[in-house]
Amino acid sequence: MLAVMELLSRLPGIGERTAQRLTFHLLRQDPSYALALADALTRLSRDVKTCSQCYNFTASDPCVICADLRRDAALMCVVANQQDLLAVEACGEFRGTYHVLGGLLSPLEGIGPENLHIKELLTRLRHGAVQEVILALRPSVEGESTSFYLQRLLAPHGVKVSMIASGIPMGGELEYADKLTLARALTGRRPA
Amino acid sequence: MLAVMELLSRLPGIGERTAQRLTFHLLRQDPSYALALADALTRLSRDVKTCSQCYNFTASDPCVICADLRRDAALMCVVANQQDLLAVEACGEFRGTYHVLGGLLSPLEGIGPENLHIKELLTRLRHGAVQEVILALRPSVEGESTSFYLQRLLAPHGVKVSMIASGIPMGGELEYADKLTLARALTGRRPA
Repeated sequence: MLAVMELLSRLPGIGERTAQRLTFHLLRQDPSYALALADALTRLSRDVKTCSQCYNFTASDPCVICADLRRDAALMCVVANQQDLLAVEACGEFRGTYHVLGGLLSPLEGIGPENLHIKELLTRLRHGAVQEVILALRPSVEGESTSFYLQRLLAPHGVKVSMIASGIPMGGELEYADKLTLARALTGRRPA
Repeated sequence: MLAVMELLSRLPGIGERTAQRLTFHLLRQDPSYALALADALTRLSRDVKTCSQCYNFTASDPCVICADLRRDAALMCVVANQQDLLAVEACGEFRGTYHVLGGLLSPLEGIGPENLHIKELLTRLRHGAVQEVILALRPSVEGESTSFYLQRLLAPHGVKVSMIASGIPMGGELEYADKLTLARALTGRRPA
């Protein structure tokens, strides 16, 4: 009981109180639930690895996306991490392949180009059929520095490089948008 | 991976997004962590049961508190659930035994006396050495109805029945106390 509490409290966003509440919740459920979770966790840590091509989490190598011949090999979407890949994939708008950087450049946190899968990205571009790279990195200081760094780095490779648009989110109100977002929406305006 | 997400999202206070974030966090940790959690959950569901005397969660029956001869068998603290027992135990002020009701009376939720360990409480009082019962139930409609119900029920058993004090919490400011709490603090005033 204490072991479960202690281990749960190490998860991000879960403090000691929440860990205790969750543990007691587990104890009140049918034991099959905790056992199913234990089993799923065991399989997670045993079976899930990273794809040797795109660095997404996967059970098989290459992952189902890299192995899917129906995906457009000419189009590659570069994302910071696996969650972002999942988000892009979930929007249903993208049919190309991915490359997970494993983070964003951040001099403050000591994350340099050598800490990200950038060398591997260049290798893929050198040997692959990629014609356009979409940089789908978040619009933040780290995201934009990483985008600019990659833009410069990819220029000599003869691939088209684009960045995802940043502006007012769908359904969002201009009135409540922050100045930076609104400024970006104006700069990024497109002909109607 | 999906199994872990799905199972985590069933936990109270954990939605789909949080479950996803936690799963990705687990995938970025050393696999030993997820395995340790899996192992702890397996042991939790296999080893933890409820004490046949006080209904606290326990690995042994009777639990360590019920089995501890140094605890005052004349004093019994009645709590709604195991978390509350833990909270009372943690304050270090109580050296008697416990009885976990397993909830509070709530006609709205269809929880009647037969759904709580009340019959078992009476049996313990009939056969035990208990001289005082402290009702440590939360000061809410359900908590107080349950307290009053138990007070009436315990009256013929010749045990002293008391209720924990309710009033301004330690360090709390009168200015910010709600009216009901302040009123209760006044009614419950004690000679200095």
